[in-house]
Amino acid sequence: MNENAIIAQYGKKRVDIIKRRLAEFAVETPSWGYRRAGTRFGTYQAPGDPKTQEQKFAKAGQFLRRTGKSQTVALHFPWDAANMAEVAKLQKILKKNGLKAGAINANLFSMRPKGALGARVRFGSMTNPAADVRRASVAHNLECIKIMRRLGSKCFVLWLPDGTNSQGQMSMFDQADYLEQTAAETYRALRAGEQMLIEYKFFEPGFYSTAIPSWGRALQLCNALGPRARVLVDLGHLMREKKLGGFHFNDHKYADDDLATGSIDPAQLFRIFCVLVEGDMRGVMRIRDIGFMIDQSHMIKDPLDEMLESLENILIAYAKALLVDFAKLRDLQSRLRVSGADALLRDAFLTDVRPLLSSTGS
Amino acid sequence: MNENAIIAQYGKKRVDIIKRRLAEFAVETPSWGYRRAGTRFGTYQAPGDPKTQEQKFAKAGQFLRRTGKSQTVALHFPWDAANMAEVAKLQKILKKNGLKAGAINANLFSMRPKGALGARVRFGSMTNPAADVRRASVAHNLECIKIMRRLGSKCFVLWLPDGTNSQGQMSMFDQADYLEQTAAETYRALRAGEQMLIEYKFFEPGFYSTAIPSWGRALQLCNALGPRARVLVDLGHLMREKKLGGFHFNDHKYADDDLATGSIDPAQLFRIFCVLVEGDMRGVMRIRDIGFMIDQSHMIKDPLDEMLESLENILIAYAKALLVDFAKLRDLQSRLRVSGADALLRDAFLTDVRPLLSSTGS
Amino acid sequence: MNENAIIAQYGKKRVDIIKRRLAEFAVETPSWGYRRAGTRFGTYQAPGDPKTQEQKFAKAGQFLRRTGKSQTVALHFPWDAANMAEVAKLQKILKKNGLKAGAINANLFSMRPKGALGARVRFGSMTNPAADVRRASVAHNLECIKIMRRLGSKCFVLWLPDGTNSQGQMSMFDQADYLEQTAAETYRALRAGEQMLIEYKFFEPGFYSTAIPSWGRALQLCNALGPRARVLVDLGHLMREKKLGGFHFNDHKYADDDLATGSIDPAQLFRIFCVLVEGDMRGVMRIRDIGFMIDQSHMIKDPLDEMLESLENILIAYAKALLVDFAKLRDLQSRLRVSGADALLRDAFLTDVRPLLSSTGS
Amino acid sequence: MNENAIIAQYGKKRVDIIKRRLAEFAVETPSWGYRRAGTRFGTYQAPGDPKTQEQKFAKAGQFLRRTGKSQTVALHFPWDAANMAEVAKLQKILKKNGLKAGAINANLFSMRPKGALGARVRFGSMTNPAADVRRASVAHNLECIKIMRRLGSKCFVLWLPDGTNSQGQMSMFDQADYLEQTAAETYRALRAGEQMLIEYKFFEPGFYSTAIPSWGRALQLCNALGPRARVLVDLGHLMREKKLGGFHFNDHKYADDDLATGSIDPAQLFRIFCVLVEGDMRGVMRIRDIGFMIDQSHMIKDPLDEMLESLENILIAYAKALLVDFAKLRDLQSRLRVSGADALLRDAFLTDVRPLLSSTGS
Repeated sequence: MNENAIIAQYGKKRVDIIKRRLAEFAVETPSWGYRRAGTRFGTYQAPGDPKTQEQKFAKAGQFLRRTGKSQTVALHFPWDAANMAEVAKLQKILKKNGLKAGAINANLFSMRPKGALGARVRFGSMTNPAADVRRASVAHNLECIKIMRRLGSKCFVLWLPDGTNSQGQMSMFDQADYLEQTAAETYRALRAGEQMLIEYKFFEPGFYSTAIPSWGRALQLCNALGPRARVLVDLGHLMREKKLGGFHFNDHKYADDDLATGSIDPAQLFRIFCVLVEGDMRGVMRIRDIGFMIDQSHMIKDPLDEMLESLENILIAYAKALLVDFAKLRDLQSRLRVSGADALLRDAFLTDVRPLLSSTGS
Repeated sequence: MNENAIIAQYGKKRVDIIKRRLAEFAVETPSWGYRRAGTRFGTYQAPGDPKTQEQKFAKAGQFLRRTGKSQTVALHFPWDAANMAEVAKLQKILKKNGLKAGAINANLFSMRPKGALGARVRFGSMTNPAADVRRASVAHNLECIKIMRRLGSKCFVLWLPDGTNSQGQMSMFDQADYLEQTAAETYRALRAGEQMLIEYKFFEPGFYSTAIPSWGRALQLCNALGPRARVLVDLGHLMREKKLGGFHFNDHKYADDDLATGSIDPAQLFRIFCVLVEGDMRGVMRIRDIGFMIDQSHMIKDPLDEMLESLENILIAYAKALLVDFAKLRDLQSRLRVSGADALLRDAFLTDVRPLLSSTGS
Repeated sequence: MNENAIIAQYGKKRVDIIKRRLAEFAVETPSWGYRRAGTRFGTYQAPGDPKTQEQKFAKAGQFLRRTGKSQTVALHFPWDAANMAEVAKLQKILKKNGLKAGAINANLFSMRPKGALGARVRFGSMTNPAADVRRASVAHNLECIKIMRRLGSKCFVLWLPDGTNSQGQMSMFDQADYLEQTAAETYRALRAGEQMLIEYKFFEPGFYSTAIPSWGRALQLCNALGPRARVLVDLGHLMREKKLGGFHFNDHKYADDDLATGSIDPAQLFRIFCVLVEGDMRGVMRIRDIGFMIDQSHMIKDPLDEMLESLENILIAYAKALLVDFAKLRDLQSRLRVSGADALLRDAFLTDVRPLLSSTGS
Repeated sequence: MNENAIIAQYGKKRVDIIKRRLAEFAVETPSWGYRRAGTRFGTYQAPGDPKTQEQKFAKAGQFLRRTGKSQTVALHFPWDAANMAEVAKLQKILKKNGLKAGAINANLFSMRPKGALGARVRFGSMTNPAADVRRASVAHNLECIKIMRRLGSKCFVLWLPDGTNSQGQMSMFDQADYLEQTAAETYRALRAGEQMLIEYKFFEPGFYSTAIPSWGRALQLCNALGPRARVLVDLGHLMREKKLGGFHFNDHKYADDDLATGSIDPAQLFRIFCVLVEGDMRGVMRIRDIGFMIDQSHMIKDPLDEMLESLENILIAYAKALLVDFAKLRDLQSRLRVSGADALLRDAFLTDVRPLLSSTGS
C-alpha cells in the first residue's frame, strides 16, 4: 500500500498534481459539530464532551492542528454569541485557537423573543404572516451581517426554517411574496465581495411544506436577488450558470440523517467530485471558488474522531476523482464506448489512494 | 348534508349499525400528546400550553368530556412518573379527570442513569453490548409492569430506541440475541390477561440500523415470545394470524412526520379501515380486540384541537368503511368486476358521513 | 345526496359559479390511453380492446359523447402516424369521431432508424453524443411541428427519453450543451401562438441519470429558450412566473405507476386544485390558460371506464376547490388561525359534490 | 497494486484463505441476462445481440470460459422452452457449451393461454379469483418441476407477478388464502433434496398491492409450507432461522432498476457480504449453502461485458469482507469502541483487493 504502486499505474506527474490539489483543498467545519447532537427523542452526552465555548473551539483548534485543514469555522447565531459582547469574547477564543470565522449562519429557528412576538414565531420567520416577526427576522439577519464583518468573514448563509405543518396554514403565493421581500431586504445589506448562500431542504422542520424545498426554488430566488446570491449544495447544471455557491457535506441512509460524510455511500461522494473536477478542468467553475463545509451530526462516536474520518473520506473521494483522465473519458464517451468509460471511473474508485493523503497532513 | 340522504342510499338498517359501531369504538390518546412537540431543532411553546401534570391531564379530561371517547390515556415512564410516589400522585390526577390508565410505555430512550452506566446508554438499551445497561433496561420494564398493575392497565408497550449509527457499531447477530433474551425476561413477568405490544420503526433514533425495523421482525419476535406478545401497527396478513395487537394513528408526508391522523391522506385511512372491517366481518379478528391509539405530535396548532380533528378523521374513515357492502364486494371480485368493485369503495369514500357522527358525541 | 344540501351550506351563488366553471373546464385524453398498457414484463390484452386506429379513436369519440369533455386528443408520433399519408388518414378518423388534435408529442424513444444510425439510438436522442442522431431527432421534431400545423394544433410537447444507465456514459456538461442546442433548433421553428411544453421525469428510461429530471431543470431550459416554452406539470412557484404550461394527470403509489387520476390520493388532487383556483382568483395565472391532460396507463380495468372515472375524480377535486372561500381563508391565515384555515379546506373536501357534476354532462 | 502490499498488511495466511474462498465461490447467471433488456417504453437492440437460443447460451458459455464461474445458468419457462421437445433441445445446447441448469423459474407472468382462460390471466396467476387460472398456474409450476428434474436441477424459484392495480380489485384475505393453497399444491410436488425459493417484490407489476411484498410475508409463507421452502433475497435475521435461501444480485438507483451489481453502491454490497461472512464464521449459516444469482438487466452496454463487470464487483466485495477480522471486530464492539470497529471495516473497504482476484480466473 504505497505511493509507488499508484505512480506505476497513473504516472508521477498526475500523482504530484493530486498531492498539490489535496494540499490546497479547504473545507470548513461548523462549531456546533464539536458538540454532541441528538434527535427529537433526546441527546446523549458522553464524558469529555465540551460544555463551554472555550472547550468547543479548543476541539476545532485540535482539528486544525491535526489536519492543517479547516482554519475557518462556520458560526451560528445566536448559538455562538447572543450579543455583541459575546461576539467580542468569541473573537478572542477563535484567535487563541488559530481559527477564523467562516460562514455566518443566521439561525432564525432559534429566535425566541419575549411577549406577543414570541407567541408568533412558531408560524415562521422571514415568511411569517405576521409582519412584526418578518421584521424581527430581517433585523436578525442584518445583525448577523454586522457580526460577519466584525469577525472578518465574507459569507452569509440563509437557511430558512419556514414552512407549514398543515394544509391551509399559509398561501404559497403569500409565502413566496414574503420570502422575496425579506430576502431582498437582507441581500441589499451586502457589499461587494460579500456573498449570500441560500440553502434548501425538502422537509423539516415544516412537514407539510417548506419555503425553499429544492435547488430549483433556491436558484429562482438567487436569480431574483442578484449576483451575490448563490445556491448552497448541489451540482452539475448549477455549475453551468456559475450559481453553485457551496456544499454542505454529510451522508444519509433514510431521510436527512446527517451521518458522517462518505460513511454510507462513498461511491456517491466520488461521483460528486468527478463532476466538480470535470467542471473545473473544463473551466466551467473553479473548485477553489466553491465553499465546502462539513455539516453533520455526531451522536454516538466522538465528534472530533468523526470529523477527522469525514475529512479523510472527502480527500479520498477528491483524490480518486483527480485520478480520472477526463480527456480520455470524453473521447470514449464521444465514441459511445460506455463500458470503457465506466471502467475508467471504476478503476479510479477501486484504487487505494490513502498513500497520497499521508503526506498532506491529514 | 343530513342523515336522510345517507339512509336514502344505504338504508336505515345499515345507518343504525354504523351509528352503533361508532358509539362503541374506543381510541386512546397519549398524555404527551397534550403537550407541544417539536423537532431536533427545538420546540415552540404557545400561550396556554400545559406546564404541569395537572394541566396536561386536565386537557385529556376535556377531550373525554367533549367526545365521550378516550377514557384511557396512554402513559409513558419516566415521563409521567419517575417513581412510585409520583405514580400515586398520577393516579389521583387521572381519577380527578375521570380517566384511566391505558397502554404503559417504557420509554427506554429517556433513561439517563448516573455514573458509568449513564456513559453507556447511548449504545442502546435492551440490546446494549454492555450487560449492565441491558440489565437496567429490563429492570425498567419490570418496574413499568408494576406500575401497569398499580394503575389497573393490562397493556405493556415495547418500543425500542435501539439501533446503530455506524457500520461496525454492533453485530446484527449479537443484537438479535440480546433482544430475544431481554424481551423474554420482560415477557416472563406478564400474567394471564396482560399483553405486550411490540412496535417497529424503520429508522430513528438509529440512522444506520434499527433493532426492530419491520413488522416481519416484530412478528418473528412475537412468535419467539408467546401468545401474549402482539405486533403494534399494521394490517392484513397480521390479522390472519391473530397477531395484530394495535394501531398507532398518525399521518405523514415525508418521513416519520407524526402529523394529525388523516390530515394528509384520508383515503389511506379509509383503506385501512376497510381491511379492518372486512376482517371483522369474516371473523378473522374482531375490531374490539385491537387497541387503537392516537400517536401524533402537535407542533403548530393547539394540541387539543388537533386531537379532536384526528378523532373526527378516524370516525369518518370508520363510518365510510362500514358503508361498504363487503358481501357484494366479494361477489364482484370473484366475478372479476374490477371497475364495479372499485366503484363500491369510491362511492363509500365520496359520501359525506359527517351527519352520522354528530349523534355519537364527537 | 342532492344539490340543495350544498346550496344550504355554501349558497346558491357559489353553486352556480361552480357549475359554470365545471362546464367550461376542458381536459385532454391521449389516444394511446384507449389501448391497454403494461409493464416491462408484458402487456395483457382483453377481449374488446381496440386493435386498429379506427377502433381506438372510436373509443375517444365515445368518451366525448358521454362526457362532453375532451374534444381534443393528445397525439404521439410515430405511434399515431408514421408518415404524411397516415396523417391524412388520421385527420379523417378524427373528423369522423368529432375530435380535434390536441398536444403533439414527438416520441423520440420510438425512433428506430435503419443501419448505423439505428445502432446508436440507444445512447439518446437530442443529447446523443453522436451528432447524426441529434440531427435525426431535431428532424423528427420539425416533422412533428409540420404535423401539428396540418392537424390544426398549437401545442408541441417535448418529453426526452434521454439519460444514462451507467456512470461515465456521458458528461453532464456535454448533455446540457446538446440539450440546449437541439431544443433551440426545435424552438426556433415555432411561430407566434404556438407553444412548446417541456416535461421532466426523475428517472426511467434512464436509471443512472435523466436529461431533464426536475421542474427546476425544465424551467432553466424554458428560460433559455424563450416565452413560447413552458413547463409541463407542477404548480405553485411556476405559476408566479407564468411558466406553468400544463398538467399531466395520473396517480401513483410507488414510483411512476401511472394509475388512474385521483384513485390513490384524492386529497392531493384536491390540494393541487386549491393552488390552481387560488392562483386564478388572485390573477396569477388563469386556469383556462393551462393545458390539462390525462396521461395514465390502463392495465387491468377497461381503458374507457378508467378514463371516465379519472375525469370524474378531476371534476370532483375541482368542484371541492371551488367550494373554498379563499378570501376568508386568507383572512384566517393572516390572523394565524391555522385550525380554522384547515377546517375550511377539510369541510370542502368532505362535502359530497357529486350532485354538482351530474348536470355538467359527466 | 500487487498482492504483496495486501500480505504486508493482512498477512499471508489470510490472503491464502481469501484466494481459496474466492475460488470456491459460485454464482449463477440467468439465460435472459445475455439478451438485451428494456423498459415499458421499448427495447433497443444492438448489432451482435443474440437472436437465437444457440447464440444466447453461447454467450453464457463464453462467460464460463472467461471466468471459471457460473457453470449453472438460471432458466425461465416458457421463455427458455415452451414444451418438452424444446427442453430436449435446450439440454443439448447447455451440454454443448459446458453448462448446467441452475434455478428453474416458472414465469407465471408469461402465460398467455387461448380463449376464456387467456382473458382472465391479467387478474393474477396463483391468486387469481378465477379457479381455472389458479389451476393452470399450479399446472405450470408442476410442469416446471418436471423440467427441473429432466435438466438435473434441484432448485425451483417462485416469483409471483400477482397483485392488484386498484382498490377493491381483490380481498387481501382471499389473496392470502389462495396463495397458501396453490403454494402448498406446488410445494407438495417437491422431493427430498429439492428446494423452493420464494421471492418478494414491493411493487410491479402490481401497482396497488403485491401478493408477496416483503421478506416478512415470504418468511410467513415458507414457515407455512415447510423446510424445503426458503426466502430468496435478504439477510441478517433470516440467516438466524436458516431460512435464507439465496440472493438475487443487482443494483438500483431509484426503484427496481436492475442495474449492474455493485455499479451504484459498492459499499452496500460490501456490507451485505460482511453479514454473510460473519454469519458463516459464527456457524449461523454456511455461505456455500446459499444460492447466489446475478439477476440484472442490460440495456445499454454489452450484456456479456456487464455480466463480467458484475462478477468482478461481487468478488471484490466478498474479498474485502474476508479481509475483516471479525473476532477483533466483536471485541471492539463489546468494549463499545465504535470508531475502532468502523475503522476496521473502512480499512477493508478502502483496500484495493483486485490483485487477489487475478489469480482466480476472473
